[in-house]
Amino acid sequence: MQINPRILKGFRDALPDQEIIRRDTFHNLEKTFRSFGFMPIDTPALEYKEVLLGKGGGETDKQIYEFTDKGKREVALRFDLTVPFARFMAMHFQTIGLPFKRYHMAKVWRGENTQKGRYREFYQCDFDIVGLDNASSDFEILLLIMDSLKNLGINDFTVHLSHRGLFNAFLSHEGISEKSVEILRSVDKLTKIGLTKTKDLLSNLVTPDKTEKIIEYITAGQKPESNLNMSQILNKLTELSGGSNEHSARLQNIITFLQDSKKINNVVLDPSITRGLDYYTGIVYETFLNPIPGIGSICSGGRYNNLAALYTKEQLPGVGASIGLDRLLAAMSEPEMKKSISLPGSTSSDILIMCMDESLAGYYAKIADQFRKEGIKVDMFHVKKKLVQQFKYAEKKQIGYAIIAGSNELKTNTLNLKNLETFEEIKDITVEKALTLIKKTNL
Amino acid sequence: MQINPRILKGFRDALPDQEIIRRDTFHNLEKTFRSFGFMPIDTPALEYKEVLLGKGGGETDKQIYEFTDKGKREVALRFDLTVPFARFMAMHFQTIGLPFKRYHMAKVWRGENTQKGRYREFYQCDFDIVGLDNASSDFEILLLIMDSLKNLGINDFTVHLSHRGLFNAFLSHEGISEKSVEILRSVDKLTKIGLTKTKDLLSNLVTPDKTEKIIEYITAGQKPESNLNMSQILNKLTELSGGSNEHSARLQNIITFLQDSKKINNVVLDPSITRGLDYYTGIVYETFLNPIPGIGSICSGGRYNNLAALYTKEQLPGVGASIGLDRLLAAMSEPEMKKSISLPGSTSSDILIMCMDESLAGYYAKIADQFRKEGIKVDMFHVKKKLVQQFKYAEKKQIGYAIIAGSNELKTNTLNLKNLETFEEIKDITVEKALTLIKKTNL
Repeated sequence: MQINPRILKGFRDALPDQEIIRRDTFHNLEKTFRSFGFMPIDTPALEYKEVLLGKGGGETDKQIYEFTDKGKREVALRFDLTVPFARFMAMHFQTIGLPFKRYHMAKVWRGENTQKGRYREFYQCDFDIVGLDNASSDFEILLLIMDSLKNLGINDFTVHLSHRGLFNAFLSHEGISEKSVEILRSVDKLTKIGLTKTKDLLSNLVTPDKTEKIIEYITAGQKPESNLNMSQILNKLTELSGGSNEHSARLQNIITFLQDSKKINNVVLDPSITRGLDYYTGIVYETFLNPIPGIGSICSGGRYNNLAALYTKEQLPGVGASIGLDRLLAAMSEPEMKKSISLPGSTSSDILIMCMDESLAGYYAKIADQFRKEGIKVDMFHVKKKLVQQFKYAEKKQIGYAIIAGSNELKTNTLNLKNLETFEEIKDITVEKALTLIKKTNL
Repeated sequence: MQINPRILKGFRDALPDQEIIRRDTFHNLEKTFRSFGFMPIDTPALEYKEVLLGKGGGETDKQIYEFTDKGKREVALRFDLTVPFARFMAMHFQTIGLPFKRYHMAKVWRGENTQKGRYREFYQCDFDIVGLDNASSDFEILLLIMDSLKNLGINDFTVHLSHRGLFNAFLSHEGISEKSVEILRSVDKLTKIGLTKTKDLLSNLVTPDKTEKIIEYITAGQKPESNLNMSQILNKLTELSGGSNEHSARLQNIITFLQDSKKINNVVLDPSITRGLDYYTGIVYETFLNPIPGIGSICSGGRYNNLAALYTKEQLPGVGASIGLDRLLAAMSEPEMKKSISLPGSTSSDILIMCMDESLAGYYAKIADQFRKEGIKVDMFHVKKKLVQQFKYAEKKQIGYAIIAGSNELKTNTLNLKNLETFEEIKDITVEKALTLIKKTNL
């Protein structure tokens, strides 16, 4: 009896063409993280349910994959990388030392409603600086967001900044801070539901004049006629919050750093950004692709004042962000984005060594060796099929060149090099000559 | 109430120093796989239990992490990458096309007995060619095993080859093939339990003269005085198997390819290698590190004639191998191995930009930018702590250079560069000059 080969709903196989783009994107991001001195960590996919859920009771509980293992432990698959990181830091901060800059790219699992186009297994990519609370570290995360995208060839994006502390100061100044959680959640919906509906939501929470004040705050600088720069918007927000405070000073520092480093062009101050999560206490980030802002933020994060409160008395402040990898990968294949992005690796190999005689595999391997030593990827065809079939294989795999060599060529230490796009063939050249020709094409 | 931060028995956190070596090793291996035209795939961590276990009943069943999900599906975490790959090929071989060369590096989970020093979560790294059954593809896997290790800086290793088909021909010639499974399992224990105990095991299965014959076969060429080359050993095995057959011809082809490609030095023919699994039908590989053979094979595999029989009527022959990543990583940190291996990335950064004044972060970022553009990794220290504390941070992270610049230096567009090993400091140089000096050190 055969078994029906199938996968679970909400899960995906990655075929080579997709997986190669994903892996190249990961490596590219990782290279950027490393260039900032950020270090990789890893944590188990499976943890004690209690450790992952804490006191629980939230939306997460319903989505988590949990079970009792054969040792009668209640365990669960991680549903994000933040909770395991908090647990990790509580256990290891003394060994690792602070400040600690880390990144983590790994799979997480949530039993989400797949009808929304959501997956139950997906990658997260987080980077954080833990153990510092100052403008310079807030700024470094901002730099890393920008360089991560630029190094992927994405230059047309905008990072929207806001500050939760400043917004809270404003709410406090208006005497409506007891409703702050609900107000934050309503404001967070602005881009999704629009200004009118946000107003409706707010007017259920506060009086009409307070609603107007909130709208004035979150739209500061957004009116087309205003054309304010970041410092001017900040001045307005500061005024609305009852004057200068530590939060406005922090934001001003970050703006100055952006000016000094000539990195301000991709950043705007956008007080409507709040990030719904209660978790954030300071700066918050969201990042939009200018050609396709509608897909939502592809990199979000912010500052939190106590990462591991659930596990340790040690106060661990930090700042970080998370790249939405699935969204980013989807965006990168959109026509509006594709022209600017040029990841390597979309073809499997640079050269196919064709099989003219199966007994020559040892010689073919020797030729392949010489190309691989120069960083050129070489595939070998192992069966003496008709040439047209071998060419089809090369075409399917988008291989640019074929090497054709039979026993005659091997006797004279030569080969024939065929450009598979133009079908031009250069006959009886040495490996060295072929190497030079192929290198010139900038594979 | 705080929660005790802890992880499950048999699971591990990877701290940055370990994770960076693992990731660099993975990237290095991946680069080699790609250089052979092998493509990455990925499959879900969680699958239908029935798909992973088939009819079940084996040792694996007891070790598998299985549960019923919230949609009442019986699911399990994958316990290897072979079964999901078989399922994957049954579903996708028509889309992908054959032959297909793939690699897959990912985590698997087994509830193993942790007392044996085994982990319940670990990485596997498999590479295979599916859709071919010939000597050239057997040979390419052998090349890939060897290049994977050599590109990691490991040159002192030996790949042991054998052929299950030839061994079966021998057993058949001796009229003892009905005991082949038990005989294979006994022979497979040879390196672990030694010759005498293997003989004891065998004599429980067959007559004393047959036991002697088996011993003669599996030790062919191993007597110190014999000093036979591969072809001579093969001749002996062929003779013991009743003369030439397709299996001996296949092995002879592979030996010829190894000679022609000058790759024979790291390979021996070792008929005692059988790989206990019933799965293999042709060539089998095991790979030992010559300085520390005792840790066992670090890369094993072989040819199978029907990968996805459980899921499809399509016959999918293939050949592949699997690198024992945990074992390899452990081996690479052994003193006998360490001197030959030089992976990059053991330090987090090349340069630390020290913080002389927190308001200068924008300028520091501008300097960092110029170094990063040249591929140099730059960490920023964000707080104006005493220099000795900043040096300590650099030392802990094994950072080689510090850049020290206050507002005076920034006014004149200069910086001070300190070598953190010699503590030599070069004062008031430009960024360009510092770049030249640092590049000279071949970071």
